Amino acid sequence: MSVGHGVQALGLICFAVLLCSSEASAQEQPRLNLMPLPASVQTGSGGLRINSSFSVALTGHSEARLDRAVQRFLRQLARETGLPLSAKTSSKATLAIHTDHASKEIQELGEDESYALEVSPDGAKIEAATPLGSMHGLQTFLQLMEVSPDGFAAPAVKIQDKPRFPWRGLMIDVSRHFIPLEILRRNLDGMEAVKMNVFHWHLSENQGFRVESKKFPKLHTMGSDGLYYTQDEIRDFIAYARDCGIRVVPEFDMPGHSTAWFAGHPELASGPGPYEIERKWGVFNPAMDPTNEKTYKFLDEFVREMTKLFPDHYFHIGGDEVNGKQWDANAKIQEFKKSHGLKDNEALQAYFSQRLQKIVTKHGKAVVGWDEVFIPGVPKDIVIQSWRGQAALSQAASQGFHGILSNGYYLDLGWPAARHYAVDPMSGAAANLTPEQQQLILGGESCMWTEYVNSENIDSRIWPRNAAIAERLWSPQNVTDVASMYTRLHAIGTGLEWLGLTHRTYYPQMLRRIAGPSASPEELAALRTLADVVEPVKDYTREATAPAEPTSATPLNRLVDAVPLESETARRFGELVDKFVVGFCHEADGEARLRAQLTAWRDNDAKLQPLAQRSFLVREVAASSQDLSALGAVGLAALDLIHKAGAAADDWKTQQLAATEQIKQPKTQLLLVPAPAVQKLVEAVSPGRSCSASRP
Amino acid sequence: MSVGHGVQALGLICFAVLLCSSEASAQEQPRLNLMPLPASVQTGSGGLRINSSFSVALTGHSEARLDRAVQRFLRQLARETGLPLSAKTSSKATLAIHTDHASKEIQELGEDESYALEVSPDGAKIEAATPLGSMHGLQTFLQLMEVSPDGFAAPAVKIQDKPRFPWRGLMIDVSRHFIPLEILRRNLDGMEAVKMNVFHWHLSENQGFRVESKKFPKLHTMGSDGLYYTQDEIRDFIAYARDCGIRVVPEFDMPGHSTAWFAGHPELASGPGPYEIERKWGVFNPAMDPTNEKTYKFLDEFVREMTKLFPDHYFHIGGDEVNGKQWDANAKIQEFKKSHGLKDNEALQAYFSQRLQKIVTKHGKAVVGWDEVFIPGVPKDIVIQSWRGQAALSQAASQGFHGILSNGYYLDLGWPAARHYAVDPMSGAAANLTPEQQQLILGGESCMWTEYVNSENIDSRIWPRNAAIAERLWSPQNVTDVASMYTRLHAIGTGLEWLGLTHRTYYPQMLRRIAGPSASPEELAALRTLADVVEPVKDYTREATAPAEPTSATPLNRLVDAVPLESETARRFGELVDKFVVGFCHEADGEARLRAQLTAWRDNDAKLQPLAQRSFLVREVAASSQDLSALGAVGLAALDLIHKAGAAADDWKTQQLAATEQIKQPKTQLLLVPAPAVQKLVEAVSPGRSCSASRP
Repeated sequence: MSVGHGVQALGLICFAVLLCSSEASAQEQPRLNLMPLPASVQTGSGGLRINSSFSVALTGHSEARLDRAVQRFLRQLARETGLPLSAKTSSKATLAIHTDHASKEIQELGEDESYALEVSPDGAKIEAATPLGSMHGLQTFLQLMEVSPDGFAAPAVKIQDKPRFPWRGLMIDVSRHFIPLEILRRNLDGMEAVKMNVFHWHLSENQGFRVESKKFPKLHTMGSDGLYYTQDEIRDFIAYARDCGIRVVPEFDMPGHSTAWFAGHPELASGPGPYEIERKWGVFNPAMDPTNEKTYKFLDEFVREMTKLFPDHYFHIGGDEVNGKQWDANAKIQEFKKSHGLKDNEALQAYFSQRLQKIVTKHGKAVVGWDEVFIPGVPKDIVIQSWRGQAALSQAASQGFHGILSNGYYLDLGWPAARHYAVDPMSGAAANLTPEQQQLILGGESCMWTEYVNSENIDSRIWPRNAAIAERLWSPQNVTDVASMYTRLHAIGTGLEWLGLTHRTYYPQMLRRIAGPSASPEELAALRTLADVVEPVKDYTREATAPAEPTSATPLNRLVDAVPLESETARRFGELVDKFVVGFCHEADGEARLRAQLTAWRDNDAKLQPLAQRSFLVREVAASSQDLSALGAVGLAALDLIHKAGAAADDWKTQQLAATEQIKQPKTQLLLVPAPAVQKLVEAVSPGRSCSASRP
Repeated sequence: MSVGHGVQALGLICFAVLLCSSEASAQEQPRLNLMPLPASVQTGSGGLRINSSFSVALTGHSEARLDRAVQRFLRQLARETGLPLSAKTSSKATLAIHTDHASKEIQELGEDESYALEVSPDGAKIEAATPLGSMHGLQTFLQLMEVSPDGFAAPAVKIQDKPRFPWRGLMIDVSRHFIPLEILRRNLDGMEAVKMNVFHWHLSENQGFRVESKKFPKLHTMGSDGLYYTQDEIRDFIAYARDCGIRVVPEFDMPGHSTAWFAGHPELASGPGPYEIERKWGVFNPAMDPTNEKTYKFLDEFVREMTKLFPDHYFHIGGDEVNGKQWDANAKIQEFKKSHGLKDNEALQAYFSQRLQKIVTKHGKAVVGWDEVFIPGVPKDIVIQSWRGQAALSQAASQGFHGILSNGYYLDLGWPAARHYAVDPMSGAAANLTPEQQQLILGGESCMWTEYVNSENIDSRIWPRNAAIAERLWSPQNVTDVASMYTRLHAIGTGLEWLGLTHRTYYPQMLRRIAGPSASPEELAALRTLADVVEPVKDYTREATAPAEPTSATPLNRLVDAVPLESETARRFGELVDKFVVGFCHEADGEARLRAQLTAWRDNDAKLQPLAQRSFLVREVAASSQDLSALGAVGLAALDLIHKAGAAADDWKTQQLAATEQIKQPKTQLLLVPAPAVQKLVEAVSPGRSCSASRP
């Protein structure tokens, strides 16, 4: 379908959301671990028992994909419960699914994904217009499953649900580090679980060209170190994605980010060759020659082949970060700019984009590109993917361009889930758009760039934080309660684990590697205590802080590669401190918990020291370990002083704050996350205020 | 090769072991995490750095299997280090492997598995007579890898190694619960890591016939619920096992344990049909009719087909636990016994065994059978697998029969590793055999029976305890230090995890299922604290203590199915108590640790209670949780009294011992393992002896 239809559908969706949901309704259901939260939920009383005789029936429109979805659903339900469930269907099924009609042969933007799910003590039913809705309903049912006092059960509930945005994507960069299909496939399973519907496959980069091309085999044979997907594998993968209700949008990044193409085809580049696959990270000079007709002839053939391989209506051409240096250095290209009245490299890239866009259109597809493709003269039916933000997005929308938001959803930057969660495609400048312009904003995509991500830790870099982004793109705009989000994020993490995602299991394994096979259980526990409260440095600081210039061959086996990007322990400690500081004289239990935690930190370095003597990977983080002990001691001193009226001199506070300020500085690329919370405890020490004085 | 050759090889092996090794040599190397311990180890100084440029060279005899072994080795080394290793070979390789000559086309009992491994700071080399030895050497090198202060390294070392026994097996019952090939394959990887060389595949049972038969397809179509291995899958699996240096011995259990055969072929049975696959556990009446010539005609065809499918020289015919009831109830069979002078059912089974043995011999194979096949009149070239023990084994050996030991190696009985480790095929009655008779004892096999084991928990039921049995069968007889064994078992557990075995990762997942998705981290931690100190009831008591009669459809999702069979926490607590009780006045740190552990236990039930209210799977174990709290309180009281001279009245001790005696009783099939250690603390309270009195 065309984008026009998508916009229309989106209008309906927003209307439905306003009609059916409110923040209050979300907060009335604290025990439902649904993520994304549905547009409307009404709870009833009692629940439906789930036991070994559980069965599913399909009525209405039938297709093999629905049968497979039921198989997948039953397998997951069996894993989550340990019940031996088999694929029974009967007229008196526990769960009855009615699907009205087929969805499109090739999944389109803006198809009807709505569903209704009703659970009562007597049974459950899902009703949906299309298989997409039925499949979403199955995922919601899985999330309802709870271990009750009497057995496994789903609570009585009536759900009406629709997505807020029609484009809810996850991008994975498989070029900087190659990611095998098996891992991508379980990430599709994860996307299905949280109702994301676009897998954006970043397939070419300076560091690797990952698709078999039968037309230009030198692209993958010389551009991939042998690490690429065959066309048969890609077809299988796309079929599996379709089974999960997910579109696959391929990206071939042009005219920059394309060194790997030039390894086999130097004639495409703007500078003299030869070229090799890039091993470092960053923005590099090589770029396609936009002035050479042979470039377009090549791309025409290439796009012809790839648009046959990838059935989705959208075709992503990249377009980001061309630094223009090869263009500037090439006299012929300078001449071309003059002769064609292209005043700068932006104009030259616009020329390239227009030519490429015509090729893509000729082969029946619509173009997606990063912000940079949105330059004067670009045709209107392009979709802008914004890594720059809502301002850029709304600027494009105000000029009639469709857009999706990725700024704020970069999973590799190490942000806490709450920060991603607070980013709304319709906030900031976008909030000031007219309703018609707002409808041009189709949704968003989280992005997993893989400079510091490989097969081993990728799941942990995506999940569970990605579920918070999925909720932002699916649920009503007023679903914003952060505490509720974290509670549900924890629960959904377990469901994702049963799907085979390794976002939890990878962690103790990597810590054991760091500790070495001869580490004792106590030493491992001490390493875990430290690891649980550090996070990798944030945003784009990792390369600058690296001990040596990182390359694609740099092992990702250090603590910075092992720890989760968001410390749950530190987050919970921070919450405890916040509560304590407000009501510290009445929070005996809270204080006891703080004290236990701070004591464990204070005493941890002594336990970790023997291991730091033996393992280079532990020794590297010895400073962070000492900092953690110091932090524990400061926190304990603050707690003690809080109980002694008048005991805290201002210079003590100043000293401690300065010391903890030092501790806040990153060391070996790690941040000691609880430092600010301990500073709050220090701040809470007040000469005129003590617990002993004010205690009843 | 023939068994005669095997015996000759064994003689050489024993000689070599006596020459090269002593317990002392094992104990001089406390930091080497080798398992099984090699026959001889000499350590040097320094070590070999392992980094991304690590390479391997193969010289001498070459074959594709060696190349694949190197690939597998490099993959595992890459996983264990996180280094990006590729398959580089060069003339200046880091690790040079020289293989003298080929091993047999079909792996035979008693082939030369010896190797020498030398590591120096300049490089490493493996020398072996055959690929089997080279592959063992690679595994030893992997176990040498350590995380040193300077990076990954292997210590300088000279190893000469040979197995003590030529038959070192693991049996897996895939009939009671079907186990998919993917899981069996990773268990082959685990066997290779600990140098086991026989996979005994228990393929048919009352509860399932698991092999595709093209000759008699009703066997698998009617006897397996669709859960069987195709012949192509089996050939692939056997090829993979050969790659790992492992023989595959198939077992088709006859004439009892065969109800699943009769589902499709009731004419083979001794009683009237029809038959269905058995769903319960135990010994059942159905048995093949040994008096019917058609039985032998069928078996001749069947054995012909299966001996073509399974290339190993040995063919296991089962033979265990025929209760004779169907035979007694069949007048025709009674008549046959009389007319053939078979005085009892033992004699009748001997008749059957002889007939079957002739069939197996005719098809070029040698028979293996359980103890029961060793009855008067059985031919000499049978191999007895003893589930009854060394007495039965030595009785067989004294009469000239070959044997392997499985009594003492039943992994499903829930014994601690130390108890398996103490079982030696050559101990007990076998120690009194003549040297010639001792040579008839070929080794042993651990056995994984699967009444209460499925795909989810099987790895944890086998590993790492199976590595202790592997060491018993490989290492010199005088390698018996239990503390060293446990230290190395812990380390090898990590290596096994990198191979993909799930013996650690399954556990938190199963606990999260028991807790339910809405459990808080604190509640999960409390569940873990309880789970870490309970073990399933031992030996054959599980069925008798079950809440309802268990069947093959009973979910294995309770705490008893989730917890490891040996509690590491309880074992270490027990060690701490033992040390403390001996020297309690001088063990301040030991006491602090005991106190911390006991306090955590005492306070745990309160933390777990909210979850017990919500989850039926937690509520089920509420009594054990209360017992753990009580146990903690008793232990703390004992510690307090130990410091008060004269404070402990005898009736206090009597009361506490009685209370803990109650706590030792199994509840919901769980044993609270630290109870005896807490009793030791109570016993240590003495009116005339206190720490305060005797402290310096």
